[in-house]
Amino acid sequence: MQMNNSQIGTLVLDANDVTELIRRLGIESSIKAMMQGIDQLFRRWNSFDKSARSACHSTVGVIELMPVADDHQYAFKYVNGHPGNTRIGLPTVMAFGVLADVATGTPVLLAELTLVTALRTAAMSALAAQRLARKDSRVMALIGNGAQAEFQAVAFRDGLGIRELRLFDVDARATAKLVGNLQGRGLSLKTCRSAREAACGADIITTVTADKTRATILTREMVAQGQHINAVGGDCPGKTELHPGVLSAAEVFVEYEPQSRIEGDIQQMPADFPVTEFWRVLTGDSPGRCDPHDITVFDSVGFALEDMAALQWLLESARTLRLGRPQHLVLNPRNPKDLFGMVVPCPDFSSHSFLEDSPVGD
Amino acid sequence: MQMNNSQIGTLVLDANDVTELIRRLGIESSIKAMMQGIDQLFRRWNSFDKSARSACHSTVGVIELMPVADDHQYAFKYVNGHPGNTRIGLPTVMAFGVLADVATGTPVLLAELTLVTALRTAAMSALAAQRLARKDSRVMALIGNGAQAEFQAVAFRDGLGIRELRLFDVDARATAKLVGNLQGRGLSLKTCRSAREAACGADIITTVTADKTRATILTREMVAQGQHINAVGGDCPGKTELHPGVLSAAEVFVEYEPQSRIEGDIQQMPADFPVTEFWRVLTGDSPGRCDPHDITVFDSVGFALEDMAALQWLLESARTLRLGRPQHLVLNPRNPKDLFGMVVPCPDFSSHSFLEDSPVGD
Repeated sequence: MQMNNSQIGTLVLDANDVTELIRRLGIESSIKAMMQGIDQLFRRWNSFDKSARSACHSTVGVIELMPVADDHQYAFKYVNGHPGNTRIGLPTVMAFGVLADVATGTPVLLAELTLVTALRTAAMSALAAQRLARKDSRVMALIGNGAQAEFQAVAFRDGLGIRELRLFDVDARATAKLVGNLQGRGLSLKTCRSAREAACGADIITTVTADKTRATILTREMVAQGQHINAVGGDCPGKTELHPGVLSAAEVFVEYEPQSRIEGDIQQMPADFPVTEFWRVLTGDSPGRCDPHDITVFDSVGFALEDMAALQWLLESARTLRLGRPQHLVLNPRNPKDLFGMVVPCPDFSSHSFLEDSPVGD
Repeated sequence: MQMNNSQIGTLVLDANDVTELIRRLGIESSIKAMMQGIDQLFRRWNSFDKSARSACHSTVGVIELMPVADDHQYAFKYVNGHPGNTRIGLPTVMAFGVLADVATGTPVLLAELTLVTALRTAAMSALAAQRLARKDSRVMALIGNGAQAEFQAVAFRDGLGIRELRLFDVDARATAKLVGNLQGRGLSLKTCRSAREAACGADIITTVTADKTRATILTREMVAQGQHINAVGGDCPGKTELHPGVLSAAEVFVEYEPQSRIEGDIQQMPADFPVTEFWRVLTGDSPGRCDPHDITVFDSVGFALEDMAALQWLLESARTLRLGRPQHLVLNPRNPKDLFGMVVPCPDFSSHSFLEDSPVGD
């Protein structure tokens, strides 16, 4: 009989394990590893069974399931988006995910993914910008200074060579927190009074705002030729950040077109508005940026393949660092065809067991 | 500040906790409680945001995610189906699920659902048969004697008054196991040499086979007027149990039509083949069985709302029995807008904390 994972159990990494793992490896090398992982999986794009995530919308937020699989591994992430959560002390986005074995359906890893979602989103943004932004980009506008902002800053500093951040948030405390977190980390930080001021003169504009509304963070006249726009926050039906005029003027790249048409900033555009799936840039199918004067947009919504890369990295790292512990997330019955016997021991069988356990000769 | 669930953590019920819970409450009362729970939720059918489950098929099995929500609660189940698993000591079906708070996205419960899937499927079958089978039903054919069969037997004994089972499985050891488990439990057990022999003279025919193929367990000439067919095993594209002739001759009831058209035995029928969603029978919208001579079919595939009922029952029962333990399935940061600070403590801040902790006056 073959060994199976459920005999060992599912490796569980709770919030403390994942926080400890990232602390030990460092944010920089964690983002770098995830960039490599995402790059590898996106190059194998056609090996995956992909679908737009399932989203359950309420008046105050959304809960989503994001599955993806190839012939060997299945991954899914549970993730919410509730902009009002911070008012009651909860994060806007909370997440966990599972990696499973396609051959048997056995869950191999269950891991907290709140921090990792912020890291993998930054990794995805930087990977895209390496191909879509001008090589000489040094200044980034960072509009939206909430929970994800510092990770974007670090990813663009290391992956793109960004040296100066131009910061804006409607909540000045968010910007102050970000300045506190990023001081002394090789980035010149300029606080701006508006999105317009932040965008002006930047090589890259990152928008990472949380409101679940049709916002217009950037209009056409705020964007200059040659800029790359990393649009992270528009990721739900009815939740956008860019004016349609920005999209019309740009070359637009997305992760997975069927999902982005529903959730991305391109939800505002006609169904035949031309976009390029980013994996085509990685495989050489599409040139990416063609001219230093082009405006490029990465209309990012977050795709399940990024979470699969993150889960694979977590599994490997946790094994190396010996973090987490196996749990019986699913049942491992002695006789897999006899579930009933597990909850109702047959009277004959249990008396037989009792006899075996009894001292001989009494 | 309002209390939130993540300050306590997510209640986790692993395989041992759930097994213990069912042992303590007993299979009979567990099934009965789930019948009541399913009944209540199905009567509120139009309050739920429903979707066909997401299914990832491979050559050897399927992995599915089954989400559902109303304005207050969100539930999903992860479940696989791998008929070859028993050959390597794993169950065909393994499952776990989550109950979450729609207002915040906080996961409230994570629970193993392998055993519970078998229980809730039996509960759903019996609930449907109470409305669709003849009231004087006493004899049930049970075709397929695998992991789920005993639960079906107990549910129909208690919920329908079944007194005699006519058993058949292509694997004689499965039948022997079932006979061992059910002896002395108020059921007369007759082992049959074929599905035809089992079906002959039965009031209800339950088919609960596992092969992922277009099987023909029942043909038209094996079915008599007045019988109710509880078709449990045909639940995937390409996985059916009934000959189309059986469906044509019957009144067919399903759980959620958009999902059943893809996965149920009715996948063999034209898209306009008439079916009735079972919730309409519970609310009085549809009469159910009209005549003692009708043939009725409950073409069951398993729907997310049944798992929501099961998860609600598990949460309530676990709290009463004080089973399971809270775990940080998702992160609970002190400042939800500052994830970065959790993994990279700000140097100034940590030295400040140090000073506060120091003895006064040194």
